[in-house]
Amino acid sequence: MQSKRNLTMLCDYYELTMANGYAKCGLGNKIVYFDLFFRGIPDNGGCAIAAGLEQVIDYIENLRFTEDDIEFLREKGIFDEEFLNYLRNFKFTGDIWAVPEGTVVFPGEPILTVRAPAPEAQFIETFILLTINHQSLIATKASRIVRAAEGRAISEFGSRRAQGPDAAILGARAAYIGGCVATACTMSDALYGVPATGTMAHSWVQMFDSEYEAFRTYCEIYPNAATLLVDTYNVLKSGIPNAIRAFRDVLEPRGIKKCAVRIDSGDIAYLSRKARAMLDKAGFPYCKIIASNSLDEYIIRDLSRQGACVDAFGVGERLITSKTSPVFGGVYKLAAIEDDAGNIIPKIKVSENISKITIPHFKKVYRLYSNTTGKAEADLITVYDEVVDTSKPLEIFDPDYTWKRKTLTDITAYPLLKPIFKGGVCVYKKPSLDEIRDHCRAEISSLWDEVLRFENPHNYYVDLSQRLWDVRRRLLDEHAYPKSSGQN
Amino acid sequence: MQSKRNLTMLCDYYELTMANGYAKCGLGNKIVYFDLFFRGIPDNGGCAIAAGLEQVIDYIENLRFTEDDIEFLREKGIFDEEFLNYLRNFKFTGDIWAVPEGTVVFPGEPILTVRAPAPEAQFIETFILLTINHQSLIATKASRIVRAAEGRAISEFGSRRAQGPDAAILGARAAYIGGCVATACTMSDALYGVPATGTMAHSWVQMFDSEYEAFRTYCEIYPNAATLLVDTYNVLKSGIPNAIRAFRDVLEPRGIKKCAVRIDSGDIAYLSRKARAMLDKAGFPYCKIIASNSLDEYIIRDLSRQGACVDAFGVGERLITSKTSPVFGGVYKLAAIEDDAGNIIPKIKVSENISKITIPHFKKVYRLYSNTTGKAEADLITVYDEVVDTSKPLEIFDPDYTWKRKTLTDITAYPLLKPIFKGGVCVYKKPSLDEIRDHCRAEISSLWDEVLRFENPHNYYVDLSQRLWDVRRRLLDEHAYPKSSGQN
Repeated sequence: MQSKRNLTMLCDYYELTMANGYAKCGLGNKIVYFDLFFRGIPDNGGCAIAAGLEQVIDYIENLRFTEDDIEFLREKGIFDEEFLNYLRNFKFTGDIWAVPEGTVVFPGEPILTVRAPAPEAQFIETFILLTINHQSLIATKASRIVRAAEGRAISEFGSRRAQGPDAAILGARAAYIGGCVATACTMSDALYGVPATGTMAHSWVQMFDSEYEAFRTYCEIYPNAATLLVDTYNVLKSGIPNAIRAFRDVLEPRGIKKCAVRIDSGDIAYLSRKARAMLDKAGFPYCKIIASNSLDEYIIRDLSRQGACVDAFGVGERLITSKTSPVFGGVYKLAAIEDDAGNIIPKIKVSENISKITIPHFKKVYRLYSNTTGKAEADLITVYDEVVDTSKPLEIFDPDYTWKRKTLTDITAYPLLKPIFKGGVCVYKKPSLDEIRDHCRAEISSLWDEVLRFENPHNYYVDLSQRLWDVRRRLLDEHAYPKSSGQN
Repeated sequence: MQSKRNLTMLCDYYELTMANGYAKCGLGNKIVYFDLFFRGIPDNGGCAIAAGLEQVIDYIENLRFTEDDIEFLREKGIFDEEFLNYLRNFKFTGDIWAVPEGTVVFPGEPILTVRAPAPEAQFIETFILLTINHQSLIATKASRIVRAAEGRAISEFGSRRAQGPDAAILGARAAYIGGCVATACTMSDALYGVPATGTMAHSWVQMFDSEYEAFRTYCEIYPNAATLLVDTYNVLKSGIPNAIRAFRDVLEPRGIKKCAVRIDSGDIAYLSRKARAMLDKAGFPYCKIIASNSLDEYIIRDLSRQGACVDAFGVGERLITSKTSPVFGGVYKLAAIEDDAGNIIPKIKVSENISKITIPHFKKVYRLYSNTTGKAEADLITVYDEVVDTSKPLEIFDPDYTWKRKTLTDITAYPLLKPIFKGGVCVYKKPSLDEIRDHCRAEISSLWDEVLRFENPHNYYVDLSQRLWDVRRRLLDEHAYPKSSGQN
């Protein structure tokens, strides 16, 4: 099973040099806090969809260095035997909090927080980032494409253009979370229950002496799932007429009224309208038209505007790679450490790039819903032990432009981060894939349309509590102009 | 081991419906020919690098349906027991030819050809495409970035932004083929021998009470591999002065002259020049400067033009996802079938999109090198049994604009496609990864600079022999205006 694969060695090499270093300089048991967050939404969208947590859990539970791994690292000649021994018994013993998969998330807020001894928290960085980044990217893209289709089904068809096997298999999973109804990828169905579908390629049509013969044969073998690919030679002059003939010869006599054609090239708007008219005229108003061929949310929206007669879409490379925006920029940053007495010491990373400055401390994230509309109004990041008092009006403010303030009344504050691991043990009841998908749909519907706009969406508020803002400001003052600035 | 993973079920569902269909309608033993080729070069470049063949071989050799797979398919309710039994003993029995990994390839020409019974040739489509598409994409991007760096080393740092685990692991392999010197991905080293490197993240620096202490501790633990990340707080006011102090306190007394700093944010051109001056003035002219932070071939070229003092680059998300062009558009199309007497019958796929029309027939590809310059002048696609006579001048012509002709003299014709499988058995001696990388470097140096240009490169000639052109034209005439065009 895919989910049992041991991916322990899928780590940046520096995780190992640092972990070895922490152990050597007495930081091996230091308790640290790391946040996973992202800085920008793909496609300049208004929200992202978190995904990939299930694979994080599988990874953590399967963490184990084999003797081969240990030997490989020994041969590098830079790791202590003591450290290699430590790796032999390595497992994750810390705590993890995360937002459930399918949750709508915004830049700057922690979507996963790790509390663990320094070498452990450091080591898991690469895989956690990789997995959350990848699946959040595809779920976010899928959600956009699904929204563009306005109720018409989107199937994920991109395995062959995916960036490696996992990108196909897990990408289909993420696309389903984002709202797709199916995938072409059989393995995603076998492993994760994403419904796999598919009928024929051009090769099927070419294999026969005539297109009609190819269609007729297919209808005979699969009378209840006859979706015919009509663009091998010429959609309107050959494909549609032959499909009609095959439906008439094979399906009609059996009383089967479920059939479809797929158009995979040419101008979909023009061809689908013409095909629709031909099918209707021939007595097949129930024949569905499926379109594929380099589609994405922009093209699907344009096709709708131009009156394309398409009932469902197959979306390939532009979904499975999130082609217009193929990187989800999640990062994993140290937010705090504990001193020997267990006090939490917030930590910051400053940067020449303002957007790369982190939010220090062990934190909580609250989503604030209006009780009147049910809509999400803002997210509020607080210090870990703060409680949001919703019994009275709550003033929130922009952390950069602090004069921008807003007072919220009659709200519910909902904590986003759930306990996933406690002392190395998974305490999270993993939802089914369909539950995740339903959650995602509910999440999307909790947002104002302004946030969901494809271009220039409204900037959803992600604010800091006054107490957290003060901590950050203090650390910035301490570090932005460090005292050690002797030179230059 | 990664390479032993059974990815049999990583297929588009339609491969199974078609394979079942071929079996049911008497085409189960039909011998067919499929070509893998691509239509456009990523980033509108002048050439692509083929990669991924080793994973194709591993896949074919590990093809096997488990009883779980069979049961999963049975539950779909559309496959015959006879077919499910056939899958139980399924293996690939055909022939495969392909260009070796690291070979420079161009649009339209077969880079892999399969000859096998229809269900087998059809079934392997998805995985072969996926793997060749992914690794060729990354090798091609890496080659561009390596060329932009003009001799300075490029390390692949992108695991955390890769599209899934395999994209990290195999992407690093492909990046190495394309000319990178190293990767951050430990698993790529363990599995494929791509040298893994890495030193520290910002968290290392934050973990200590001061940046100096973090640097000094690292130098003490890794005196021979001290690359210090200098942008956690402020590169010029804090990072570089503290690095100098640490080098002076720890490395100088030991006579170690190997050290480096890494800048991961801010304006690399400005900061690297200033850092270089500070390091030189402090007596560390041998300290290398490494730059990272959203680099690609365009930014690296600009940095060079602006006099950035960078000795090596770490390239992350823009390489591992080929961000500016994240899809390699390889396709797998039926080119011919054999009749019962073993005659090869060429097949074509026509399309409303001219670029989607295929080149029919079982084919060979020759690369024509000038004996005078050693440079590749053109590729010539011929029917499988044609021999190119280089003893006399060879006239080649553009297959679309046939009046564009060129006569080549004193050339060598080199067949690109090598036998990989014969009767289901691998007959190819897999080269080592370093041999593949060397081959790639030699391939690039066989091209004219005009073809290697990043923007508006010269269009390398990929022509058809007269005989092949005639076959294609005949099939186009037969199919573009099919006789069955009764309607519309």
